[in-house]
Amino acid sequence: MKSFSFALLSFLILSSFVLRQKKNRVVFFGDSITQAGVQPTGYIIKLGELLKQKGAENNYELMGAGIGGNKVYDLYLRMDDDVLSKNPDMVIIWVGVNDVWHKRTYGTGTDPDKFEKFYAAIIKKLQQKNIKVAICTPAAIGEKTDFSNELDGDINKYSSIIRNLAQKNNCTLIDLRQSFLQYNLANNKENKESGILTTDRVHLNEKGNQLVAEEMMKALLIK
Amino acid sequence: MKSFSFALLSFLILSSFVLRQKKNRVVFFGDSITQAGVQPTGYIIKLGELLKQKGAENNYELMGAGIGGNKVYDLYLRMDDDVLSKNPDMVIIWVGVNDVWHKRTYGTGTDPDKFEKFYAAIIKKLQQKNIKVAICTPAAIGEKTDFSNELDGDINKYSSIIRNLAQKNNCTLIDLRQSFLQYNLANNKENKESGILTTDRVHLNEKGNQLVAEEMMKALLIK
Amino acid sequence: MKSFSFALLSFLILSSFVLRQKKNRVVFFGDSITQAGVQPTGYIIKLGELLKQKGAENNYELMGAGIGGNKVYDLYLRMDDDVLSKNPDMVIIWVGVNDVWHKRTYGTGTDPDKFEKFYAAIIKKLQQKNIKVAICTPAAIGEKTDFSNELDGDINKYSSIIRNLAQKNNCTLIDLRQSFLQYNLANNKENKESGILTTDRVHLNEKGNQLVAEEMMKALLIK
Amino acid sequence: MKSFSFALLSFLILSSFVLRQKKNRVVFFGDSITQAGVQPTGYIIKLGELLKQKGAENNYELMGAGIGGNKVYDLYLRMDDDVLSKNPDMVIIWVGVNDVWHKRTYGTGTDPDKFEKFYAAIIKKLQQKNIKVAICTPAAIGEKTDFSNELDGDINKYSSIIRNLAQKNNCTLIDLRQSFLQYNLANNKENKESGILTTDRVHLNEKGNQLVAEEMMKALLIK
Repeated sequence: MKSFSFALLSFLILSSFVLRQKKNRVVFFGDSITQAGVQPTGYIIKLGELLKQKGAENNYELMGAGIGGNKVYDLYLRMDDDVLSKNPDMVIIWVGVNDVWHKRTYGTGTDPDKFEKFYAAIIKKLQQKNIKVAICTPAAIGEKTDFSNELDGDINKYSSIIRNLAQKNNCTLIDLRQSFLQYNLANNKENKESGILTTDRVHLNEKGNQLVAEEMMKALLIK
Repeated sequence: MKSFSFALLSFLILSSFVLRQKKNRVVFFGDSITQAGVQPTGYIIKLGELLKQKGAENNYELMGAGIGGNKVYDLYLRMDDDVLSKNPDMVIIWVGVNDVWHKRTYGTGTDPDKFEKFYAAIIKKLQQKNIKVAICTPAAIGEKTDFSNELDGDINKYSSIIRNLAQKNNCTLIDLRQSFLQYNLANNKENKESGILTTDRVHLNEKGNQLVAEEMMKALLIK
Repeated sequence: MKSFSFALLSFLILSSFVLRQKKNRVVFFGDSITQAGVQPTGYIIKLGELLKQKGAENNYELMGAGIGGNKVYDLYLRMDDDVLSKNPDMVIIWVGVNDVWHKRTYGTGTDPDKFEKFYAAIIKKLQQKNIKVAICTPAAIGEKTDFSNELDGDINKYSSIIRNLAQKNNCTLIDLRQSFLQYNLANNKENKESGILTTDRVHLNEKGNQLVAEEMMKALLIK
Repeated sequence: MKSFSFALLSFLILSSFVLRQKKNRVVFFGDSITQAGVQPTGYIIKLGELLKQKGAENNYELMGAGIGGNKVYDLYLRMDDDVLSKNPDMVIIWVGVNDVWHKRTYGTGTDPDKFEKFYAAIIKKLQQKNIKVAICTPAAIGEKTDFSNELDGDINKYSSIIRNLAQKNNCTLIDLRQSFLQYNLANNKENKESGILTTDRVHLNEKGNQLVAEEMMKALLIK
């Protein structure tokens, strides 16, 4: 009887330990949008709240790794220090806005073929360590719904590259570009360039953070 | 009585002859696309053929005034020499591709507000001389139908400016942007970036010249 | 006879007074640097102080006409409203920084040949109204003295165009580019990119305003 | 006698073997300028001829690894395949023109800080394998001697970065920027933009190839 109790106790302790060990560590790897994601109303915080609502908050540990102005090769250059060092189970990459935008503002955007090469190199390095990878399309630079945001064409082009990368590399795709377009077509009848999901055409307002959190939630729950 | 009748008849014949001689002089004012319009298979030549088919070739005199690389303020700077000096009855302006494209290739595109100001100044100067003005939207920089041509957004933006200018200034609008998009959506199922209506994403192949000629024909016949 | 003499004398005195009142109206026509020129420590105010020191303050009336972001064709577009309407005796034009800079920041800089054409058109229109014209070279985008300011080459190129325009059109040249380079070579031994004559590589600090005022003073006094 | 012959023979065989082993394999790693370096009058071929004149042609094996349009991160991405796979003793890196130029032509130049990071990563990876590294400054984009080549400032900026990298990483510096400037100041009195050392402002004419070969020769002979 005593030995049975002891065995039971041991089992309970061990299993609780094992359960505690099972937290999925998810690193969000990106630019200024992700950097803001850990702010009080940011999408990473909101995603934490969604997990709590599902009673799944103990299963996930969410860590931000966003730095303003980052392009795909900035992620590549700092992935050892900022991502691999954290031993994540999953990495959600969201990059691309600056790769397009900096063509205009600094003359230092990223060629489409190099964008693909560096992105593929990041994915490969993560997958080699058995880290699950989800990748996002860039949501928007401008929210106008008549397709006249200056950089729409290029954003669509880089989104296509990312969709192909997801398929080729068997990554989960979080197609924020499409989610944002659909939401705006439904909710931006006045053809405003910002204020629907973004504050300034690019960075998320609270509604935008909520939408992103919901899209990421779906990706987290994919087995 | 007889001699009077004869004199009257003579007068009527002569005056109808004079009227028949009074051709509408139309100047096509634009960039390299218009410069190529006077080539054997160019859109201006094709428009002449369409007029012939309608038996209207004696009513119109078509003159090219296109120079490669021109932006709206190039047209402004040379309009006295190249257009007004020809005493046209009508001017068809087709400009905008370089205003967008040169942002990328030379860093010397045209700000949208200056584009509008110089365009409005050209229209005003022509209308003050009772010259009829028709204006065209820029057709394409890339023919992909999934909205991923790099400069699609900006082309759409400048097309909107032109549509507004037409309305505000009571000009005939030749919406080549829309014609090209519709044609490509129907005929470019493989999402090619050129070869449908253009040879190189911008300049017209024979099919493109034909389509432009047909659209211009409609504008000519508007009373 | 006496009363006649008195009347004549009165007339002579009055008319000489009126002549003394006939101030030279000078309009400063430019971009944000000139817009700031009418601020308390701005170069136009400092120039007024220099004139006072010479006892010449009653001979000149100084009027600012600077608008931030202006390029040469912005000046062209607004010269009727903002300059000619003021009936100036002299216009000092200072433009060029944005024509170069906007290539990088917006993709909408000005082609060198168009820069020259619009500049020449402004000068011509002023000179046709017998307005004296002085023109300035763009001072600086960056004050480094090892010739590694990113846009140095292009600034030098546009400065050459302006020097040629001055010569061809018989305008007074105020070579701020050269004055700034000389001052920096002597006073910026640490190769700083700003803080010597500018606050931010482009806009003038108090020392810069002083230097510009002194250079303009020389131009004012040229007969 | 017999044993003497044998000893002599052994010595000759051994020494020839040793001599054959002593060839230094040098890989030239760069862009289109280096790609053209293996053409009949290219700088790599001319360097081979210089080595022959010195009787040193058996000490060096010269291999081109230039690809048109390459920027520093292109070199980074292909260094395993195109350089390390060849087991070089020395690598001469010449890159930078496109990192600056593509800002203007495609909007995809390289940020100065990323230029330095990728360049340092290449050097580190080579030095870790005990490969000797020599690095070159970008020679020219335009040969005008009045400092009005559009991109002069930026070329000078990236040249400074490279000079610092050479010092920090103990690499041989081949300062082509300085050699070209000096040569042009002495030989381009008419301020031509090309035709002195280049055919087209960037790519080398025969004189340019000769000058580069001579500068590289000095670097090869540094112990």
